[in-house]
Amino acid sequence: MKDIFLTFEGPDGSGKTTQLRRLADSLSKLGYDIVVTREPGGTSVSDKIRSLILDPEHTEMKDQTEVLLYAASRAQHVRELIIPALEANRIVLCDRFVDASIAYQAHGLGLDVEQVAAINTFATGGLKPTRTYLLDVPVETSLQRLYSRAQAIGGEALDRIELKGETYHSRVRDGFMTLLEENPDRIRLINANRSEDEIAADILRDCNELLDRVFFPQPEV
Amino acid sequence: MKDIFLTFEGPDGSGKTTQLRRLADSLSKLGYDIVVTREPGGTSVSDKIRSLILDPEHTEMKDQTEVLLYAASRAQHVRELIIPALEANRIVLCDRFVDASIAYQAHGLGLDVEQVAAINTFATGGLKPTRTYLLDVPVETSLQRLYSRAQAIGGEALDRIELKGETYHSRVRDGFMTLLEENPDRIRLINANRSEDEIAADILRDCNELLDRVFFPQPEV
Repeated sequence: MKDIFLTFEGPDGSGKTTQLRRLADSLSKLGYDIVVTREPGGTSVSDKIRSLILDPEHTEMKDQTEVLLYAASRAQHVRELIIPALEANRIVLCDRFVDASIAYQAHGLGLDVEQVAAINTFATGGLKPTRTYLLDVPVETSLQRLYSRAQAIGGEALDRIELKGETYHSRVRDGFMTLLEENPDRIRLINANRSEDEIAADILRDCNELLDRVFFPQPEV
Repeated sequence: MKDIFLTFEGPDGSGKTTQLRRLADSLSKLGYDIVVTREPGGTSVSDKIRSLILDPEHTEMKDQTEVLLYAASRAQHVRELIIPALEANRIVLCDRFVDASIAYQAHGLGLDVEQVAAINTFATGGLKPTRTYLLDVPVETSLQRLYSRAQAIGGEALDRIELKGETYHSRVRDGFMTLLEENPDRIRLINANRSEDEIAADILRDCNELLDRVFFPQPEV
């Protein structure tokens, strides 16, 4: 088992999904056998949980319920799709994984980080990505998008969303930065405030180095 | 807040749902304001999670997914229904709660008891029943039901179900007995191998003592 599990993290609009697809294309062209997937979702059961989480009718859903639903979806995804693919020596590329729950749910919603991490360890059985590409965009970029949306609603809504947006987005970004500090070998910070081609080249270069080490290991001198 | 939260536990067919209804009727007649609920379920979100768990199409559902879905349903149920009812000084009677997850999922399926307990503490925010009535039926009674079902299928199925049934049911019962040992003040073991009336009288007697202590506390001598 080569165990190459690559995840992409970062705020919405950072271009992570585009970059995931670009890396998938490059790896396919190089002849690697790849699987592209995303969270929440990825299997039939996980997709049903995803619709439950994202159903706009469920305004009464509690934060703890959401954390546990994401973890349930992940438990199924890891065991039904990701682990079997890794065991078949396929390279798995996944759009969001545990780091997203830690950043958005624990840090963003102000829940206990240790508890959310422990729940996710139970869900994944301890599976960790080989490499995580964290696409970083300044908080102002996220806020600008919030402003445009709020302006479409108008007046009073602007203040509420602006206020909630700023605190929330800063907390999420702090969460990602804490994860980066704690996992310097796994997580690569990618400046996503550049052209798509520049970002894709950076990621492909790093990924090729990783694959070289795994597929053509050098004897230690 | 009087905080009277009563749960009923035990294997299917132990008569716990019947006994819960009988206690609810008795308490209502005595003038208490009660809420009757059940797990998984109890709220709109929890009911949707319940259908997901119980959907017979989901044969591929992993044990860990199931544990997390039960916990998600419980997180919503506790925060949307149980706690608000307790805060309104209503008596809550609930068919199954955390103990069922510990007995059926952790002990029954052979998952880590500490992990399943920690996930449920996150889900409930630490809320515990004031009193739990554990209706006990001999394992043979559960097995006899399995035998009758297996015989309807016939031959080979009998052995497989008999084997799985015996181990599983013994583990679940051991799980409940461990919980009883660990929580002697909270859990009351009820011999459910008696007439409905005898059982109901026992439970009502215990519950009345509990309510007397809460509603008419005696000064310490």
